Amino acid sequence: MSREKLRVIPVGGVGEIGKNMTLMEYGENILVIDAGLMFPENDMPGVDIIIPDMAYLLEHQDRIRAVIVTHGHEDHTGALPYLLSRIPDVPVYATRLTQGLVEVKLKEHKVRGVEFHVISADDSLDLAPFRVEFFHVSHSIPDGVGLAVRTPVGLVVHSGDFKFDHSPIDGRHTDFAKLADLGREGVLLLLSDSTNAETPGYTPSEQEITKTFEQAFLQAEGRVIVATFASNISRVQQVIDIAARHGRYVAVAGRSMINNVRMAQELGYLKVPEGILLDAEDTRYLPLDKVALICTGSQGEPTSALVRMASRDARAIRLQPGDTVIISATPIPGNEELVNRTLNNLFRLGAAVYYDELLDVHVSGHASQEEQKLMLNLIRPRFFVPIHGEYRHLVLHTKLAEQVGIPAENIFILENGDVLELDNCSARVVDRVAQERVFVDGLGVGDIGEIVLEDRRTLSQNGFVVVVVVLDSQTRYALTTPRIVSRGLVYNRDSEKLLQDMENYILEIVNEGENSATLNSRLRETLARLIYDAVGRRPMILPVVIEV
Amino acid sequence: MSREKLRVIPVGGVGEIGKNMTLMEYGENILVIDAGLMFPENDMPGVDIIIPDMAYLLEHQDRIRAVIVTHGHEDHTGALPYLLSRIPDVPVYATRLTQGLVEVKLKEHKVRGVEFHVISADDSLDLAPFRVEFFHVSHSIPDGVGLAVRTPVGLVVHSGDFKFDHSPIDGRHTDFAKLADLGREGVLLLLSDSTNAETPGYTPSEQEITKTFEQAFLQAEGRVIVATFASNISRVQQVIDIAARHGRYVAVAGRSMINNVRMAQELGYLKVPEGILLDAEDTRYLPLDKVALICTGSQGEPTSALVRMASRDARAIRLQPGDTVIISATPIPGNEELVNRTLNNLFRLGAAVYYDELLDVHVSGHASQEEQKLMLNLIRPRFFVPIHGEYRHLVLHTKLAEQVGIPAENIFILENGDVLELDNCSARVVDRVAQERVFVDGLGVGDIGEIVLEDRRTLSQNGFVVVVVVLDSQTRYALTTPRIVSRGLVYNRDSEKLLQDMENYILEIVNEGENSATLNSRLRETLARLIYDAVGRRPMILPVVIEV
Repeated sequence: MSREKLRVIPVGGVGEIGKNMTLMEYGENILVIDAGLMFPENDMPGVDIIIPDMAYLLEHQDRIRAVIVTHGHEDHTGALPYLLSRIPDVPVYATRLTQGLVEVKLKEHKVRGVEFHVISADDSLDLAPFRVEFFHVSHSIPDGVGLAVRTPVGLVVHSGDFKFDHSPIDGRHTDFAKLADLGREGVLLLLSDSTNAETPGYTPSEQEITKTFEQAFLQAEGRVIVATFASNISRVQQVIDIAARHGRYVAVAGRSMINNVRMAQELGYLKVPEGILLDAEDTRYLPLDKVALICTGSQGEPTSALVRMASRDARAIRLQPGDTVIISATPIPGNEELVNRTLNNLFRLGAAVYYDELLDVHVSGHASQEEQKLMLNLIRPRFFVPIHGEYRHLVLHTKLAEQVGIPAENIFILENGDVLELDNCSARVVDRVAQERVFVDGLGVGDIGEIVLEDRRTLSQNGFVVVVVVLDSQTRYALTTPRIVSRGLVYNRDSEKLLQDMENYILEIVNEGENSATLNSRLRETLARLIYDAVGRRPMILPVVIEV
Repeated sequence: MSREKLRVIPVGGVGEIGKNMTLMEYGENILVIDAGLMFPENDMPGVDIIIPDMAYLLEHQDRIRAVIVTHGHEDHTGALPYLLSRIPDVPVYATRLTQGLVEVKLKEHKVRGVEFHVISADDSLDLAPFRVEFFHVSHSIPDGVGLAVRTPVGLVVHSGDFKFDHSPIDGRHTDFAKLADLGREGVLLLLSDSTNAETPGYTPSEQEITKTFEQAFLQAEGRVIVATFASNISRVQQVIDIAARHGRYVAVAGRSMINNVRMAQELGYLKVPEGILLDAEDTRYLPLDKVALICTGSQGEPTSALVRMASRDARAIRLQPGDTVIISATPIPGNEELVNRTLNNLFRLGAAVYYDELLDVHVSGHASQEEQKLMLNLIRPRFFVPIHGEYRHLVLHTKLAEQVGIPAENIFILENGDVLELDNCSARVVDRVAQERVFVDGLGVGDIGEIVLEDRRTLSQNGFVVVVVVLDSQTRYALTTPRIVSRGLVYNRDSEKLLQDMENYILEIVNEGENSATLNSRLRETLARLIYDAVGRRPMILPVVIEV
């Protein structure tokens, strides 16, 4: 038996734990599972995306045996361009569709020369000291896998994102048999998807929503427009199938949707009847009841195809009464206001709108409580770590694990960066790898942190005032009237009195001959008080004193 | 028959229509129904609240006969301090509890000398040419009323916020009998609450959640902490009753909760068993299983009592494993992230947490579809205007009205500001009263608009750069090195190269002797390009050129 231990480390962005990346380390060998991104919350202004902290990986890049990607969603793949541009010579393993989706992203980021290995769920990889096997999982994207990793201390199972869909659109079920085999063999540790730990029962099958879609297509007088996630290839297949049955042509709108559909079709993951797929432009010449459109915008993203239509963007398709819009997604927390606005605008245009609050037009891609218990019972692990979820989901998942008989002391709720160390009979949290949120803003990766964000929040609340005073370095008298530059505080044209008052106060203070050491702070304090008394706001105040 | 017509005008804030205020005008007489506020959305940074545009009322203040307040929620009362400080001599009519809640607010705003009339649901007011009667409605606050307004052209019914709760906590039902009487008499126009037009069936009774609360109290080893809206007096009564049954003392935390509970108790709307109510401070000396706490924070508001506890604020009660927290509310759209963060922190502290996603700990105060139909069928109005809801809710409410037999041409979906004109047999939209969003920020009411908000959004995304150049007015040479003030763009300490590059470019441009007319724009463009190439961001760039 080895003296060496296995270390499991969830790495992540904001809120969710172990979602974007999980590390397995044994001796000088690291297996990286997924490299995804998170989207910023509403109080992280200007941040484009958040990626996992890779400091530990960069420091130990010689140890990395492989990056294994479980499926093609951005929260599992979106950080790959950042990882691979900094650590280019690491091999990446993914299924065919996942690789196709990743390559679209790598191309956008101009990351080239990646060593890609396309795997299938039946493969077995020798990445000594690890042996990695896969099992197919059904999810809201085809070609997802979970992992069974044989390590010197025992077998570790990582569920990936999964549900047990008994009638998946692509006909491929989560591999019960292999899971049962693994369980029978004996599993040391299970890491399993906690996303829907709040939801009792079973997640409905993707087929469940077919009924609602059929009804929408039957009743639609004009076009049928379906908005969903660009990666939701199964949903796209569903819409194409139904459109074909109803004699409608299909067009695709939105850059990411167009790219993904093209790629999925090329790789054979989308079955498109001959001649049914048209350019969105060309649908203009067809009768409205012969047209179906699949597009982006299900989250109310301001530049998406659906939002452009809803807000009558001149370049978008003009919606009209009789058109039907199906929003086949639920809002990600934080996007509710944008989605509601889009809904209201669609109603204003007179469209018939189907959305999740009203009708079954979306199902989750994640296991609900009964499925989470089924996974636990199939695998019957010695130790259990809930991953993929916010802290409360992990806690709720542990309750389910306890219900099916896993002792509480064998269950570990980790935070991102926690190091769980295991040998073949014990597990404990021994360490913590520093985890900063790495914000990407424009070209900058990790160059803005809490200080800059705090400044942005302050600026967004009450704006700023820069006061420029030019002094004669000899006499210390002002050489010009003070210049005041302010934005976001008041509407300057309506605030002449306040600006005039500020100018007067500044001149008064300056001409008292205050010394340089204290002039700045006196200006700041005086103006802060003046502004607060006048309008009750606390802008950022920045005096600039120049002596010439 | 009068030649004069009745004009009905919904006035409002953001998103919802006719929620915050409705005007009824006949000749030179205006009845104001409610004067509430809205909370800003996430893309309205720095805005405290939004109030209805009162320009029309200010212009015609001599016409105002009365302000009638249907119930004590802020979205129906919160603009009263602003209305009454500008139009002080208008009489206000409200029930006892509503008046109590309004007076708390008026006191905070130092608005005095308001002419208040306490009414009961049985009263009838002669406000010629209107005669106003009331009917009790059950809602998530006691003492709510709807209005029956007799006008020269016919009877108008305004539902207020209502549901048909068959077992309300205070024992008072929505007045079916009076509604049926009104319907029999013949109603020209019904304005009715659309909030829950997306929800099929009936809204469960307030009593429904008692079961879950009882269970929580039974199982709780430590304290039981219930967070809800400060105005939800019925929920507070429920918690007090259950706590009493389980032998627990009750304390109240959070300023608005403390004020409301005190006032409701004084007015007799809260029945508190002798000696059960303690100061939160004093509960420290009691065994944990003898304590229940009612507090603010159900929306994750950063300074609320619950959020302080969740984030281990030193001044707050220290939560510990064994404590139970019940969040008896659903997140208002836009607050989901704050609520989720609070939930995660409560789980991190080891509390048992009951919340709406998991268990029935909250019911809506608004009628669902079947109740909306019941209201329509009791009143059987000739014309129907859905109010209280976002646009999509109004549309869905009209579908229900059509289902129960109201002709589509007799239904009007108004936007805020639309003027619906009625005589005794016809109705049509004839006009539109300008509706600006009136933002309150600090002491300023309506002084910031879209331009300032847009500046704030830009600042929040990428910050700003102010560049100060001092020129010799004779030689046009720079007298000092340029001064660069920047916040929210980059972390300045790590960006010395960028700042140095900016300085060099500025000096170069200045010393080319560019004339004053174009110097500013050249500086702005050059710096914009330099910054975008370096970090991919577009900050606000503001050159200040001073000649001495």
